[in-house]
Order: sequence, then structure tokens, then C-alpha cells
Amino acid sequence: MSNARQILTLEGEFPMHRGGILTRPNLAYETWGELNENRDNAVLVFTGLSPSAHAASSPRDPSPGWWEQIIGPGLSIDTRRYFVICVNSLGSCFGSTGAASVNPETGEPYRLSFPVLSLEDVARGGWEVVRHLGIERLHTVLGPSMGGMSALAFEILFPGMSSGLIVISSGPRSLPFATALRSLQREMIRRDPLWQNGNYDADTMPLVGMRLARKLGMITYRSAEEWRVRFGRERASEECEPDDPFCLDFEIEAYLEHHANKFTGQFDPNCYLYLSRASDLFDVADHGATIEAGLSKIQVDRVMVVGVETDFLFPSHQQEELAAKLAASGRDVEYVLLESIQGHDSFLVDMDRFRPTIAQFFT
Amino acid sequence: MSNARQILTLEGEFPMHRGGILTRPNLAYETWGELNENRDNAVLVFTGLSPSAHAASSPRDPSPGWWEQIIGPGLSIDTRRYFVICVNSLGSCFGSTGAASVNPETGEPYRLSFPVLSLEDVARGGWEVVRHLGIERLHTVLGPSMGGMSALAFEILFPGMSSGLIVISSGPRSLPFATALRSLQREMIRRDPLWQNGNYDADTMPLVGMRLARKLGMITYRSAEEWRVRFGRERASEECEPDDPFCLDFEIEAYLEHHANKFTGQFDPNCYLYLSRASDLFDVADHGATIEAGLSKIQVDRVMVVGVETDFLFPSHQQEELAAKLAASGRDVEYVLLESIQGHDSFLVDMDRFRPTIAQFFT
Repeated sequence: MSNARQILTLEGEFPMHRGGILTRPNLAYETWGELNENRDNAVLVFTGLSPSAHAASSPRDPSPGWWEQIIGPGLSIDTRRYFVICVNSLGSCFGSTGAASVNPETGEPYRLSFPVLSLEDVARGGWEVVRHLGIERLHTVLGPSMGGMSALAFEILFPGMSSGLIVISSGPRSLPFATALRSLQREMIRRDPLWQNGNYDADTMPLVGMRLARKLGMITYRSAEEWRVRFGRERASEECEPDDPFCLDFEIEAYLEHHANKFTGQFDPNCYLYLSRASDLFDVADHGATIEAGLSKIQVDRVMVVGVETDFLFPSHQQEELAAKLAASGRDVEYVLLESIQGHDSFLVDMDRFRPTIAQFFT
Repeated sequence: MSNARQILTLEGEFPMHRGGILTRPNLAYETWGELNENRDNAVLVFTGLSPSAHAASSPRDPSPGWWEQIIGPGLSIDTRRYFVICVNSLGSCFGSTGAASVNPETGEPYRLSFPVLSLEDVARGGWEVVRHLGIERLHTVLGPSMGGMSALAFEILFPGMSSGLIVISSGPRSLPFATALRSLQREMIRRDPLWQNGNYDADTMPLVGMRLARKLGMITYRSAEEWRVRFGRERASEECEPDDPFCLDFEIEAYLEHHANKFTGQFDPNCYLYLSRASDLFDVADHGATIEAGLSKIQVDRVMVVGVETDFLFPSHQQEELAAKLAASGRDVEYVLLESIQGHDSFLVDMDRFRPTIAQFFT
């Protein structure tokens, strides 16, 4: 499955943005296409909270990636022209070092001894991979959702490292509504008795908490309008137990159940907590007195900011704000608002709208 | 505290809308003002999911009610002119019979042996109180949120029982987005190990599940815009434990914690489950082939439908639909869309907008 994955082990210590260090952390990544002679065709992709670095299939790993219809030969990010790199976020659990990894200093998993994670650390992890690949300057850095904030952090921390930037369904900071939802997801996991302050075993994971958190995630990733059209008041086909007055008999309940079943067990709960908190903590204004001051550090030639009308986790006024404030300092900024009805997750599913939008930036 | 509360005990059996019976159920209610000689000034108020019948203070119970600024002498529903009745929903836990009540047939609490609850049962409970008070026809029936659906059920089941109807921040059915949220709230409670399939004791309630459900409730009752303005990225004043990487340090997290603390222990978890499910099950179209056919049974002279722009639990297109379909059969329908930023809960907090809106109907 993962034989396209490459691992970069950093030598020495990795200083974390909010304090603490990691010793010889790993960074997992995949690449597609070839770096050209001028080394100027590299594209760096940051991911949302839960995906791995497997953004697209390749001969070494033919399983479909999370952005299968965007990255590939002849696709929106054409791997016949571009050398595409996708990094598993530092703090995640798909090859990069996170709370589930063994701390080489102790021989034990980090668990909650993992330092506070920031998207600035995720950005620096991406930078390390890029440098390791011998790339001085990227063609474009991009990312959806949390990956959009990681891309912003990258551009702020490493000004001039890319000429293009695409921020998708993201924003310059977390707003309290999104923080409330993420905080509640974390509490669902932490309140699961099996969580045990992070000291669960592989065979006694806090799966109930993870299921609840995933269901709330699904609710925040889609839109009311999509579900109204798609499910209405349909009942699920499976019969309910006659003595269960709270049986999940609406189709929408069965849908959430299905998605929770798919997700649970795949993602480490502690890693989820760290990445979720990192999203809450992110604020461009931490890099200056204001969002404007933070953004002013970004040195790119061209920016595209993409938003979706039905997204309520990162509502479109956040993309509008980001685009306006990036453009205020004279940058070439394009703001695209898409009419997708699938909410925040549109970048994963509404390919009819996202394919041409991303393609346009790379032509 | 509750010495304004009156209890009506029904004789014999109460047949439930979706099957099963209750034996000699209680219905708790409060009244304000006086019934006039013509007995035509009575106003019946149904509540949202969680309130008791204590909608307003009175000499017998001076504690503030949940609609303190709407019901009273000289207020929007002027108790010098109107005789106001508020009923604790059947299935709730503030005096009316619900899952936490003792089944007189067994001497044990109903718990999950309580029959499936429908808002049609809540409506019939209100009708029983009205008949008990010797009222043939009401001036107006009204209710916010779940109470608005109960009011619709009342008008469909007892056509001609009132001349006026006000439906506030509600709709003709539950849509899948709202059902998803309520279903998840129920799952949070049912997944609490202390729930024990409903067989918890008073001193071992599933309080963790109730806290989580209440927090999700608060998130769905307010709006992202209100919280953006009110909390932004403010940090809470209390210090975090240095070793807790997931401490609730954003002001919005402290706010949710405060509300969860206030609520928990006040409401019986099983009753919450039954009322929540009753909201999901409600559909005017169950009373005809379509919503239109169901609504056609309603015989009132005047309707007001009130919605709030920032409500995403009962979005304003549901009130618009309800008003349009009620008006299609030639009824006198007024649709009011308010600009409140407090979302679904606006009817409880945005008194500057709700006071005059409700008052207008009663002048």
C-alpha cells in the first residue's frame, strides 16, 4: 500500500514553534513527476487534518489518493509538467513523527509528552522535505483546509520560497465557531474512559470518542443543503430492533454511521487531538500585530484564494478577507468563490468545479 | 420555586400517537392573567425542548421564566388582556409525565419502556390542559423551535381550536442536517457508560454525555457571527495546567463549559432522548401526502411565521416554505424574517427584535 512513501529523518533536534524539541523526527512524503533541470517546477501540497501524503496514485502505489482527480498526468496539477510533493503533516500518524511515534530519547511513545504542535511546525516539516530534495524555490505551495493555513505559515516563515500560493477553503485564523466544534470533538475523545489521558493501548483505543468526533466532523464538512437534496427524510433500509426507541433509522443517521465506521481505527486519537488543537491555535496575526502585518511577510508573485459558498467551517468571508488583505499590498490575487453545495469538503468531492479552478492556476 | 405550577392528572389511558399508552399521565402547566367571561382570550404556549412551563414570573413564583420579557403585564403577550397557559411538554421532566416518571402500572420509572414520543402527543397534552380549563377555543397557539412544531401538530389535530397561530424559528418537518445534529447528541448520551441503556440512578447519571450534548446544543443554538463579534480569539482568564496540551483556554471554550455546567443535572437524560427524537420524527406530511396536504387541515384566521437569518438549526427557508404553503390556501399569513445574529436562540435573547414582533400580533 505505502510503497510510494518516502521517509526523511532529520538529523539532530527539531525546535517546535511553541517550545520543546523533537529528536530526529521523521517526515513522510510522496512525489509525482520529475524535477526539471532548472529545479523550478516543484509544487508542494499540504493536507487537511486527516489525510496521509498519498494524494494520488502512482506506479509504486496504484491505490487512489485523496486528490486523485487533481494530481496526475494531464490533470489540474499536471505531473508531466510539475514535480509534485505532498507531505504528511508533522504530528500526524502516517509516517511523520507525532504523538503516536516512539521518542528516541526514551524508547517510549510520546503520547502527551509530545510538545504543543503548531501549523508553523507542519510548515517547517514541509520546508525540510523541500530542502532535502535540493529545491531552492518552489513553483507553488498550496493546501486545502488546515493545509491552507499550513501553506500560509510556510509562506510567512520562508518568504520567497515559492512564486505561487493557493489557499483553498481555509482562512488566516481559526474563528470561535470552528474552535468550538473542534474543541468539542477533542472533548469527545478525551472523555472516552479508554482515552486514559492519552495512555491507551493499540487494542483498547478510545474508539467511541473517535466515532463521535468523526460524526461531528462529517456534519461540519458537508452542508445542510446537500443533505436536504440527497437524503431528505428517507429512512434507512435496515430494520431497527423493536425495543430500541433511538435506532438510527433515518438515512442521514446511517450515512454518518458508515463514515464513522470507515474512519475509526485508521487515525491515532492523540495525533488527532494535536492536529485539531494546532488548527485552533493558528493565527496569521501571531506573525505581526495584525493579520495584515502577518500577511505582509509573504513574498509570492501570484495568489489564488478559493472558497465555497456552503462552507461553514471556514466560511467564505474568511477567504474574502484573506484575498482582500493579500491584495492590499499590491499582490496579484485571484479570489474564486465556488457554488458547490458540498460545504467544506467540496475540494474532495466537487471535482467538476475544483478541477478547472486549480488547472487554471497552472496553465 | 415551583409553587405556580399546577398539575392535571388525566383519568384513564392516554393513547400515544405512534402506539402504546400512558396510564393516568400528569401534565404540568402554569397560567398568567385571567380567563375573561367570553372565554376567548386564552393563549397557549408550547416550549422548546428543554424549558419547563415556567415561562414567566408571577406572584406565586417570582423567579424569572424563560420568556420573562414576552409574557407579563404590559408586555408582548399582555397578561392584563390575555390568559396565558404554558404547558410542560409531555415526555419532559418538569412535572409532566416522561421517561423519568413512575409508571403507575408497575411502580417503577418508565425509562426506556416509555412509548415512542411524538410532538402530536405533546400537542394532545396541551389540548387536555386547555379542555380542563374549560376553554372551547383559544385566541392563539404559539411556540418557538420544537414548540412551533408542537403548535403545528395542535392545529392539525384539533382544527378550529384557535383563531391565531404563531410559529417561531421552527418548520414543517425536521431536515437531515438538524436530525444529524440531534442524532449525534443522543449518541453522546447513549455512549456514556453510565447511561446503561437508560437504567442509571439519580446519583450516577450519564453527566459526561449530557455535557457533550449540551455543548453541541449551544453550538447549534447560536451563530458563528455572534461568536466572532463576541469572543474573537480572546483567551479565558483562568490559567491552564502546564501539562495539559488541550486545556480549554479560548474564551469560547470557557463559555461552552459554563453553559454545560449550568444545564447538566437539571434535565433527565432519558427525557432528553425522547424529546430530541420526537423532533426528528415530526413531519407535517405525515398528516397528508404532502406538507401542503397536512397544513390544509389547519383552520385558523391569522398566522404569523417568524424566522431568524442566522438560524441554521431551523434555517429561514423552512419558515419561508411554511409561510408560503400556509398562505397558498388563502389564509392571512405574515412572514417576519429578523436580522438577529444570535441564531436559533434569538427568541430567548434578542428581545429588542422579538418583543415588538410578538406584540404586533396581539394588538
